[in-house]
Amino acid sequence: MRLVPTILCGGAGSRLWPVSRELHPKPFIRLADGQSLLQKAFLRGATLPGVKEVLTVTNRELFFKTEDEFREVNKAQLPTSFILEPFGRNTSAAIAAAALHVVKAHGEEAIMLVLAADHLIEHQESFANAVIDAAELAQQGKIVTFGIQPDVPETGYGYIESEGNKVLRFVEKPSLEKAQEYLESGRFLWNSGMFCFKAGTMLQAMEQHCPEILAATKACIEQSRRAEGKGFAELELDAASFAQVPDSSIDYSVMEQSSLIAVVPCNIGWSDIGSWSALGDLSAADDNGNRIDGSALLHDVSNCYIQSNKRVVGAVGIDNLIIVDTPDALLVADKSRAQDVKHLYAELKAQGHDAHKHHLTVHRPWGTYTVLEEDPGFKIKRIEVKPGASLSLQMHHHRSEHWIVVSGMARVVNGDNELFVRTNESTYIPAGHKHRLENPGMLNLVMIEVQSGEYLGEDDIVRFQDTYGRV
Amino acid sequence: MRLVPTILCGGAGSRLWPVSRELHPKPFIRLADGQSLLQKAFLRGATLPGVKEVLTVTNRELFFKTEDEFREVNKAQLPTSFILEPFGRNTSAAIAAAALHVVKAHGEEAIMLVLAADHLIEHQESFANAVIDAAELAQQGKIVTFGIQPDVPETGYGYIESEGNKVLRFVEKPSLEKAQEYLESGRFLWNSGMFCFKAGTMLQAMEQHCPEILAATKACIEQSRRAEGKGFAELELDAASFAQVPDSSIDYSVMEQSSLIAVVPCNIGWSDIGSWSALGDLSAADDNGNRIDGSALLHDVSNCYIQSNKRVVGAVGIDNLIIVDTPDALLVADKSRAQDVKHLYAELKAQGHDAHKHHLTVHRPWGTYTVLEEDPGFKIKRIEVKPGASLSLQMHHHRSEHWIVVSGMARVVNGDNELFVRTNESTYIPAGHKHRLENPGMLNLVMIEVQSGEYLGEDDIVRFQDTYGRV
Repeated sequence: MRLVPTILCGGAGSRLWPVSRELHPKPFIRLADGQSLLQKAFLRGATLPGVKEVLTVTNRELFFKTEDEFREVNKAQLPTSFILEPFGRNTSAAIAAAALHVVKAHGEEAIMLVLAADHLIEHQESFANAVIDAAELAQQGKIVTFGIQPDVPETGYGYIESEGNKVLRFVEKPSLEKAQEYLESGRFLWNSGMFCFKAGTMLQAMEQHCPEILAATKACIEQSRRAEGKGFAELELDAASFAQVPDSSIDYSVMEQSSLIAVVPCNIGWSDIGSWSALGDLSAADDNGNRIDGSALLHDVSNCYIQSNKRVVGAVGIDNLIIVDTPDALLVADKSRAQDVKHLYAELKAQGHDAHKHHLTVHRPWGTYTVLEEDPGFKIKRIEVKPGASLSLQMHHHRSEHWIVVSGMARVVNGDNELFVRTNESTYIPAGHKHRLENPGMLNLVMIEVQSGEYLGEDDIVRFQDTYGRV
Repeated sequence: MRLVPTILCGGAGSRLWPVSRELHPKPFIRLADGQSLLQKAFLRGATLPGVKEVLTVTNRELFFKTEDEFREVNKAQLPTSFILEPFGRNTSAAIAAAALHVVKAHGEEAIMLVLAADHLIEHQESFANAVIDAAELAQQGKIVTFGIQPDVPETGYGYIESEGNKVLRFVEKPSLEKAQEYLESGRFLWNSGMFCFKAGTMLQAMEQHCPEILAATKACIEQSRRAEGKGFAELELDAASFAQVPDSSIDYSVMEQSSLIAVVPCNIGWSDIGSWSALGDLSAADDNGNRIDGSALLHDVSNCYIQSNKRVVGAVGIDNLIIVDTPDALLVADKSRAQDVKHLYAELKAQGHDAHKHHLTVHRPWGTYTVLEEDPGFKIKRIEVKPGASLSLQMHHHRSEHWIVVSGMARVVNGDNELFVRTNESTYIPAGHKHRLENPGMLNLVMIEVQSGEYLGEDDIVRFQDTYGRV
């Protein structure tokens, strides 16, 4: 039996702003142990017995960052493959594309285990046991969903009424009263958004229940770019034809329609970490009910969650607050209103505010850059280039650049010259000079770039050649 | 009649942390109109009719910064002189030194107007009228205090019981009950800490009531360095002998002892801005009672004061909070607990934490520097040098420095070379090279310094020559 963990890398995490941003969504949030939710999802699938590869469906903007995340934890160097979406198109499209991909690679009998990238599962062993049960049902031709045994009358989740592995019905998010009733009945489970099925079974079910989604996805794949080779996407979905795929959740398109559905009830320490309140609850509180991640000074403070990586937070006479500090944005919210943080996220998006889109540290295929200071006439960046990576061969019309290497070594093209710049050496790139920065070493290259000029916008860039297809 | 406004630049402002720091105390706090409390105090005295100079008693560590503050607002180029204390020694010592200084310069008949540097007076015209009354009484040989007509039963101030200009008694900070009684009686005034007297009168009173303070201050002045000339201290008090001056407030040493005391009752919009709550109240609130200085996004927020210069603050479901954000420290406090912010200040001091001592931007005689980034192996600073100013001729054993001029022009000594470095040019100072940086221009010089080396402490500096006496 071939089991292919298939990670759907979604979840904006608008309620986890300011740590989550459009280009740093919820799966990339790191927990106190240093691992991101995405890394935890990867390991969740990768460490199951007999797993030989992991498939991930993600936004193409997040591809390089996703690869970086996997590289950090993929000690066994398990092969990874990717389906890159130009934009989110709901779970039916993602699962259709993944199933078509798996059938092409491994045939219809291959079993897919669909995992969310933005959830937490505390008990890996119980989870692995549930997967064994699910895979057995899948082999018998079932489409299996994982039902979480509820312990509180949660109104934010969908429910499944069940008997053993049999699904009686799916229920939308209930009222508190209903949720209480469900909890007490012992017959209801939370719909976790994780699934297990044979790739062929899913394609047949789609053929039957949502043929237009399947057909449009097939058509899209035919238009799409397939790239093989190290560190590159397997399949980058074509934007125009992907836009033709109907936007629908797999729950609606298949789960609620098919007669093949089964459920595996499980008790695996599952949480969708829906808010700062839920995230805060993951760590132990001190005697006053406070949870501190970072540096804080408290005077008569109780039941607060404080996260601050750089700044010291001084707090006086406050109770039940969430304080989350990042380099360019700060959140202060009452814990009981944690769900409403999404309104700030939406408002920042509407304003086109930078603090909605990305952090001060911006991820690029070759590494990261951080704007340290910006003033009329100059801008200072810290640039970090991964070993072996290379920025595009480029030119700026309006700005000159001073480059000072502070760690590692750089290979630099500067006009007609090619040179090595070592730690504590510098070079100067006049406006109009073609240039390229590369890290030929084995360690990260850290460079300080001082830009000088009348116009310093990121769009003053002419790319001549680029390893990552950005010309 | 010669009237010499004498500013006592005191007030730590521990309740106004994180904006106030040991080396950026309360008088330097800027209000929403862009002026600091110190600048307001300067203008308060300097714009009185007939004033020809301003005398300031301040800590020597704050001298250059104080001069910078004055320069910004001293459009009339009124002469300024300074008495520099090595440490605070309470108001009696400061006033004794100032009175001795004024008698030496202008004789015993000169009238001194002692002003606090950390208060606010809203009605300058009423204040000027009160000063006319006070000066008249001073000319008649009185030691005059300004009594503020109370409008709330404040328990944080001392009170004066009075009849007309006659002081019946001074009262320490009262209980709320007593304060209420005082307020209703109409016979009590707040003791504002502002005074007016002939310099000779004060010295005679001190001779009579606290002769040991006067004698010790005289002895100290004999040991002290007197420097004349542009931009330099008149009198830098000798530390060892200043330590011999008894530590006592002028209220205790003179005001409560002398029979010459008079009071001028006044209604001048006085406030000592004792906390963030008081400071917040200076600006107008929006419909929800919020006062915002900076960038904030509010969702169901009421009665909050939010100050943030750089970061965006997102707030959800909070009420009656103070949020003050600075580059390296953040305060979140319940407004009703604004007084308790001083406990954080004390705790940071006890820890020796940087956020107690200074801001990320550090003031030097020649300008400022800001650490933008610090990592093992390198440190990046933004350095701003005032026109005509010069850093010391210096050398570092362990670090090399890359200097990039991003605004203005620098004259640089680099080993045996002397060169000009213009905007968008750079130079490299190897470890062990003697070097000096100077701004020969008319505009501020802004430079980015990238330090590289195994040890980057501020104490790796050998000074050979220094304009500001720091060799």
